[in-house]
Amino acid sequence: MAKHKGKTMNEKRRKIVLASGTFDLLHLGHVKYLEDAKKAGGEDAKLVVIVARDKTVERRKGGRPIMPEEHRRALVESLKVVDEAILGYEKFDIGTVIKELKPDVIAVGYDQKEIEKQVRKFVTHDNFPVRVVKIGKFGRDELNSSIKIKRKITESYKGQLR
Amino acid sequence: MAKHKGKTMNEKRRKIVLASGTFDLLHLGHVKYLEDAKKAGGEDAKLVVIVARDKTVERRKGGRPIMPEEHRRALVESLKVVDEAILGYEKFDIGTVIKELKPDVIAVGYDQKEIEKQVRKFVTHDNFPVRVVKIGKFGRDELNSSIKIKRKITESYKGQLR
Repeated sequence: MAKHKGKTMNEKRRKIVLASGTFDLLHLGHVKYLEDAKKAGGEDAKLVVIVARDKTVERRKGGRPIMPEEHRRALVESLKVVDEAILGYEKFDIGTVIKELKPDVIAVGYDQKEIEKQVRKFVTHDNFPVRVVKIGKFGRDELNSSIKIKRKITESYKGQLR
Repeated sequence: MAKHKGKTMNEKRRKIVLASGTFDLLHLGHVKYLEDAKKAGGEDAKLVVIVARDKTVERRKGGRPIMPEEHRRALVESLKVVDEAILGYEKFDIGTVIKELKPDVIAVGYDQKEIEKQVRKFVTHDNFPVRVVKIGKFGRDELNSSIKIKRKITESYKGQLR
């Protein structure tokens, strides 16, 4: 292979896109969010997904997820669109994650207002060269949120499960 | 490319493995079942998954799945291990499916006793050249069955969702 000064085409670093979430009860809305996230990094981007730890979810939402963290992580990594899924820190700090993974793009979901705020604050304050991309909601369907799925299950299965 | 009599190495037909299920509330047990199914077809097998129609599930289990059929199909097809996911016939008949898709291997899950019976009956009766492989249960975990996940959700969210 011909060598050039600096990087050759093949050695060009793939853009890293960072996405995150709890991914309890995986649904099509999650997949669409991840697909749009990857697209935001252009062709051949690498999609790394941070999956929230059980303890982080418990602290934020007052209850543990239905699926344990290692199941949630492995399920997310088994998706075609995902290159790597890793568990977050128990004490989640987006600044540490950004410094460590050096993403080119951070994709925040329509329902991740708190994470978006933290990311924008860190990026502006540290003047970090990362693009923040907001991903829209997928469809109007009632089954694009874990909480709605849980509600539907609870209503459908009320008497049936005893 | 050198031509041989009959098929060349590159033209060799990939073995087709057929798996099936409802896949309502996708969990790691589903992924492990599909991974083991694909392995049963050897290297480079093509995994085709039949996803049960809403009406078929309703007729068999007395209630519709939580996730509509097209969501379940698309989610299954978004898994790395799956080459193609297709919706079943509303009036499910394994014989028709086998004749149409001509699988080399049919993988039945540990909880698919009725499908296994139908497959074995068809294969024996028609002397169809297909290998039936039974896939074991993944782990002892309580979260490898949709019904158990639904029960856990119902119990966790009883008061919380009003």
